[in-house]
Amino acid sequence: MLSNHLQNGMETAKLLWSRLPTSDAEGQDGVGIGHYKKTDGGTVESLDYEVIENYAYREEQALRGKLYMYYSVCVKWFFALLIGIGTGFAAVFINISVENFAGWKYSLTFNIIQKSYFAGCIIYILFNLALVLSSVYIITHFAPAAAGSGIPEIKGYLNGIDTHGILLFRTLVGKIFGSIGSVGGGLALGKEGPLVHTGACIASLLGQGGSTKYHLSSRWLQVFNSERDRRDLVTCGCAAGVAAAFRAPVGGVLFALEEVTSWWRSQLMWRVFFTSAIVAVVVRTAMGWCKSGKCGHFGSGGFIIWDVSDGQEDYSFMELLPMAVIGVIGGLLGALFNQLTLYITNWRRNYLHKKGNHIKIIEVCLISVITSIISFGLPLFRKCTPCPESDLNSGIECPRAPGMYGNYVNFYCSSKMEYNDLATIFFNTQDDAIRNLFSAKTIHEFSAQSLLTFLVMFYALAVVTFGTAVPAGQFVPGIMIGSTYGRLVGMFVVSFYKRLNIEEGTYALLGAASFLGGSMRMTVSLCVIMVEITNNLKLLPLIMLVLLISKAVGDAFNEGFYEEQARIRGIPLLESRPKYQMRSMTAKDACANQKVVYFPRVVKVSDIVSILRSNMHNGFPVIDHTRNGETLVIGLMLRSHLLVLLQSKVDFQHSPLPCDLRGGSLPIRHNLSEFVKPVSSKGISLEDIHLSRDDLEMYIDLAPFVNPSPYIVPEDMSLSKVYNLFRQLGLRHIFVVPRASRVIGMITRKDLLIEEHEHSGAVELQSTSVRGQKHDKRIRKRNTDGEQPLLDGLLV
Amino acid sequence: MLSNHLQNGMETAKLLWSRLPTSDAEGQDGVGIGHYKKTDGGTVESLDYEVIENYAYREEQALRGKLYMYYSVCVKWFFALLIGIGTGFAAVFINISVENFAGWKYSLTFNIIQKSYFAGCIIYILFNLALVLSSVYIITHFAPAAAGSGIPEIKGYLNGIDTHGILLFRTLVGKIFGSIGSVGGGLALGKEGPLVHTGACIASLLGQGGSTKYHLSSRWLQVFNSERDRRDLVTCGCAAGVAAAFRAPVGGVLFALEEVTSWWRSQLMWRVFFTSAIVAVVVRTAMGWCKSGKCGHFGSGGFIIWDVSDGQEDYSFMELLPMAVIGVIGGLLGALFNQLTLYITNWRRNYLHKKGNHIKIIEVCLISVITSIISFGLPLFRKCTPCPESDLNSGIECPRAPGMYGNYVNFYCSSKMEYNDLATIFFNTQDDAIRNLFSAKTIHEFSAQSLLTFLVMFYALAVVTFGTAVPAGQFVPGIMIGSTYGRLVGMFVVSFYKRLNIEEGTYALLGAASFLGGSMRMTVSLCVIMVEITNNLKLLPLIMLVLLISKAVGDAFNEGFYEEQARIRGIPLLESRPKYQMRSMTAKDACANQKVVYFPRVVKVSDIVSILRSNMHNGFPVIDHTRNGETLVIGLMLRSHLLVLLQSKVDFQHSPLPCDLRGGSLPIRHNLSEFVKPVSSKGISLEDIHLSRDDLEMYIDLAPFVNPSPYIVPEDMSLSKVYNLFRQLGLRHIFVVPRASRVIGMITRKDLLIEEHEHSGAVELQSTSVRGQKHDKRIRKRNTDGEQPLLDGLLV
Repeated sequence: MLSNHLQNGMETAKLLWSRLPTSDAEGQDGVGIGHYKKTDGGTVESLDYEVIENYAYREEQALRGKLYMYYSVCVKWFFALLIGIGTGFAAVFINISVENFAGWKYSLTFNIIQKSYFAGCIIYILFNLALVLSSVYIITHFAPAAAGSGIPEIKGYLNGIDTHGILLFRTLVGKIFGSIGSVGGGLALGKEGPLVHTGACIASLLGQGGSTKYHLSSRWLQVFNSERDRRDLVTCGCAAGVAAAFRAPVGGVLFALEEVTSWWRSQLMWRVFFTSAIVAVVVRTAMGWCKSGKCGHFGSGGFIIWDVSDGQEDYSFMELLPMAVIGVIGGLLGALFNQLTLYITNWRRNYLHKKGNHIKIIEVCLISVITSIISFGLPLFRKCTPCPESDLNSGIECPRAPGMYGNYVNFYCSSKMEYNDLATIFFNTQDDAIRNLFSAKTIHEFSAQSLLTFLVMFYALAVVTFGTAVPAGQFVPGIMIGSTYGRLVGMFVVSFYKRLNIEEGTYALLGAASFLGGSMRMTVSLCVIMVEITNNLKLLPLIMLVLLISKAVGDAFNEGFYEEQARIRGIPLLESRPKYQMRSMTAKDACANQKVVYFPRVVKVSDIVSILRSNMHNGFPVIDHTRNGETLVIGLMLRSHLLVLLQSKVDFQHSPLPCDLRGGSLPIRHNLSEFVKPVSSKGISLEDIHLSRDDLEMYIDLAPFVNPSPYIVPEDMSLSKVYNLFRQLGLRHIFVVPRASRVIGMITRKDLLIEEHEHSGAVELQSTSVRGQKHDKRIRKRNTDGEQPLLDGLLV
Repeated sequence: MLSNHLQNGMETAKLLWSRLPTSDAEGQDGVGIGHYKKTDGGTVESLDYEVIENYAYREEQALRGKLYMYYSVCVKWFFALLIGIGTGFAAVFINISVENFAGWKYSLTFNIIQKSYFAGCIIYILFNLALVLSSVYIITHFAPAAAGSGIPEIKGYLNGIDTHGILLFRTLVGKIFGSIGSVGGGLALGKEGPLVHTGACIASLLGQGGSTKYHLSSRWLQVFNSERDRRDLVTCGCAAGVAAAFRAPVGGVLFALEEVTSWWRSQLMWRVFFTSAIVAVVVRTAMGWCKSGKCGHFGSGGFIIWDVSDGQEDYSFMELLPMAVIGVIGGLLGALFNQLTLYITNWRRNYLHKKGNHIKIIEVCLISVITSIISFGLPLFRKCTPCPESDLNSGIECPRAPGMYGNYVNFYCSSKMEYNDLATIFFNTQDDAIRNLFSAKTIHEFSAQSLLTFLVMFYALAVVTFGTAVPAGQFVPGIMIGSTYGRLVGMFVVSFYKRLNIEEGTYALLGAASFLGGSMRMTVSLCVIMVEITNNLKLLPLIMLVLLISKAVGDAFNEGFYEEQARIRGIPLLESRPKYQMRSMTAKDACANQKVVYFPRVVKVSDIVSILRSNMHNGFPVIDHTRNGETLVIGLMLRSHLLVLLQSKVDFQHSPLPCDLRGGSLPIRHNLSEFVKPVSSKGISLEDIHLSRDDLEMYIDLAPFVNPSPYIVPEDMSLSKVYNLFRQLGLRHIFVVPRASRVIGMITRKDLLIEEHEHSGAVELQSTSVRGQKHDKRIRKRNTDGEQPLLDGLLV
């Protein structure tokens, strides 16, 4: 009776494993760090992304079969819809709030400066300070994980590294209200990064059926049991965030593809596309509704944020040189920006922010006051310029009141028909400032001196502001910086070439693209985003070339902004290509110092506890013994699953014999959801589990819970090949095994080309016959029970 | 002395293997069919895509080191530039030629119909016939592989299946001149598919340093020694083709990403992007040059092909229903189109085209005459409509001469102030017809009857024309069909909702998107292409939704157009996700009926010949024996490499002992280029190699030529996991091995996070120490020579 318990167990596990639904069986066995140790003082915790390989749930799902698959596909699409709607509404809410706060601020200040500029300045500073203070208070006291951009953390999450608290419900709330405060408060940061984070949070919360803490979980929503499905949802959320932030649906899809995800499948692309389309419809509908004036100060903008379609129609070859110069400047300034923010972030993390929340609050308030003083004060020192004559005919008003939509702002000017060019860009919302910089038919509006002043001041402010304890995006500041020097170059081109059909606004657009390219190092997605936000397809080839140059120049100095930020936050992203020295290493070299800790198939509870205590490994090979004493690796057991088993105790048994020998079939005692760790909690810790003395003397048969066939590599495989396997399939553990003594078969394309309709016929027959053979062989091979040394000792 | 020959050989192979340059070491070991048998009467041949693992070249490159890597990167980028320029010029040449031929044709016909409509009809038919005849003659007598779209074949090539002749120089020439004839001759097909093929041909020819047949090969260009590099180039070529065809650079990148490639890396994305940008600049520059009238009839168009930017600005919720209807129609008609072309292609391949080239020529000529008669004759039966009053003010001329750019064509009308709406779309070039269908501010221009007539006739013509022996793209016909029913729906919406701000042209655009979505099933790339060719970003959300609906509807019936066409051509594409029944199968099931044929390490030439004759396998495991008689798999030997060894004969040796025992080091006798099969040739056949009786008695030591560590899977791994491994990494052979008896180590994320600067320090030390250990162990383990049974028998 004991003779074939091993093969029974393995067959059961394999059978169950093979019946997995789509989500689990497609090869990726979860992403995460194995026994990765925290090396940084930051927020990265030891990870446990797991794919559930619980046989019970598999059994359940196998019974449901294809119908369940269709159901889960429907739920996935429905969720994509919900993510789109949710992110769209969040974006609209943030936009309306920011625009209204900014509108009130500027109209109040404008009313007061009619009487006193000093009082106006005070009011302006206080208004900004109040908004920023609300933001930093929310972040420091309610949702610390909502600080900063969030994109590096999301990128890390999708690469397999869980930063604690990044996808909590409170983070979502903190991000939305925090970015309203920080952006409305006039800091040198944008709302685009936070919106991506918002989209990801919405997606993740939907994926786990609501917040675990607030008990909103719903049973029927928990289709998303594998980490991969959750990751897919978060990818959708990221795309939705970009689509909502820039009203750029295609750009959102490409951003998610190029910048955020580490694993991409064409099926996912379609779903992401759908989410983005929904966002576009929601945002557009909301904006249409706002046009009738129901949203306060919001409502003047269209679906295209900065329309530059009336810019330059054509370009000559001579202009390619200054455009290349813009690209080079973008690369240099972008790389410098990355480096400076890196230093400052490092300093903040290591010194300043360790001193507590009050320092963070004081820091942000100080920056807010400085920003307000600079943006209000500097234009005061600037001499006003008389309004241009010709523009009176072309429908461009001059002058306008500050803070209003449009060029030529009258601010601290002696004459009524003058405007202050520095105030036009500085004492304005960032959106309007960019619109002014991009504007066509406004040649000579800005003086080089004003642009240079603005460039230096704003660059410094943007560097200092990023990394403070408020939600902060880098897109809009990047566009501000880039369009300023772009316009500067454009001015020189206008005066140098003396041609009439050069528009400074076009150069500003190219400058914006170049700075973003030099800092974030995206190409295709950035290009599409730039086109979508400016509605000028004709400049596409130029944007592409500028981006290529700026990315190449930037790459010569450092890595992209998000990669640098991720690294300093202790998020070790796996790059898409292996390191150079991996070529001269083998798989064995990589795990040379490891001591592999095995579990036998049936193991005593006290042994599990002591092994789990003695090391930090997240996965353990499980071995069993054949009759003739040979060991055989029967699979991989995960630490987190062991903890679940220890906690539930239902699988404890008194006998040290495999469970299938006592009852026949494996009883279903577990629900899949027990094995899934919610993203927003820390999971089970060994210290939380209380085991009585009797419990410790009992045994567990691990066979039903192992992953029976993790990916393996031979010991002398080149490490770069191993890296590719690990990275491309999004693996978590790879077994390094000795060189094989024989080859059972070779799988080629032909063997994988199975037609769907052959199912019932040939293939089934074939597989049955093979199973029959295997069974025979096994029986011959292992016709006594395996002599497990551990168990033998215990049985004495 | 004989004691450790085995481990020496293996060490050598591994050492060499580990020194591989980037291109070979990154894990993908080539793509292709193993021992795949031709199942179809078509052109697919047994494949031999190989990654060269020749130690000689590796040694050579290892010496050159990092400098060589930079050189090869530079060459790759230079080639991307060349591909862009080449494809751009090819596209300009095709466009200018087609436009001029069409222009001459229409002006000639127009001059004649002033006198006699009958004579005009004859001239029109003959002109078309002459152009089409030239095209079909080129295809049938010079470049048979240039027939059809080419996209399914390129897709197959990038998926790993080589269709013979698809990337030859003559195919390139045939494609360019053939598509000038077929498109200029007014057939219901487009030049976009052929341009993609053209780009791919240019890329492939550059990659192998010119045509092998015409002896243009240049030594320094042969950096592209791995199949992967070639594939990357062809991917660039495809993107360039789309970018040139539609003047849609971003669309090109996405087309290559979504539709064509099977393996995609982010590094490649940037290069593809660069190529597309170059194409855009080239095409734009050429068009700027043509604007001054130097290109004959060509020169009226801008960079945007069909500008619909003056279309509908906004849309109401009520319009979403008719737009959804357009999506459904698109899905239905698209799926029907796929099915009909499939049947007809099948019939052609199995019956009609087997009868010889004359049948192909007659068929095309017949279709040409019918097309000409229909497009000239049907408008004659159509009653003319009086020119609308209001349009006289809006700058739209009415009537115009047929074949000219613009709406409201006067054709066979009794009055001077009338136009023939059917002639406006039918008796016109396809580009102009689409422009007219897309045109805004021309409500009520077309009658429903005319549109319906055109839709039915053109749909039938497009179905019949595709698959004939001329180069044929499906984009433009698809846009024609789609915009016709789109405009029809638009007309009903206009009359039903009685709203003024509905533009029929916008509905025509959505219709075009829906038909392409329903037929080709692309989403993101098609969406971007539609936006880029029509310059209307504001309709993006609508295009997205229409595409989603049409793709979903189409998917309910059949696969995408290119997939269906690839399948019927016997190109078995590996889909991105495994088949459903693979979940219940194991790796062993997939190779159950295989008889694995091993090679010993040192093998007699006559044995190689007999083994290669006896089966069609493309890869063979090579085994060696340890002292105690255990076999050990030392790697994978490829058939094509064996053939190279047999042909060159330099590695033949008299002794049956491994070569490293006789000379010490392995001599470098081979050049890598010997092992690479040019894409445009058939490679070496066993029949071509002449071996003397003495040769057959000699031996070859295979150790230096094997791939020492192909990817392996345990026998009971789920086949869907195996499929993912195979598909994601683009593999060609996977070894199925028995379950391991022990685990040497586990590789997790931590083990793969090696900092670049650690190179000289810890890692190097670690790897050295491991090598030392390994060496010791091996010496202990195998201290006699292996007893190869085959060789033992031969030595008697």
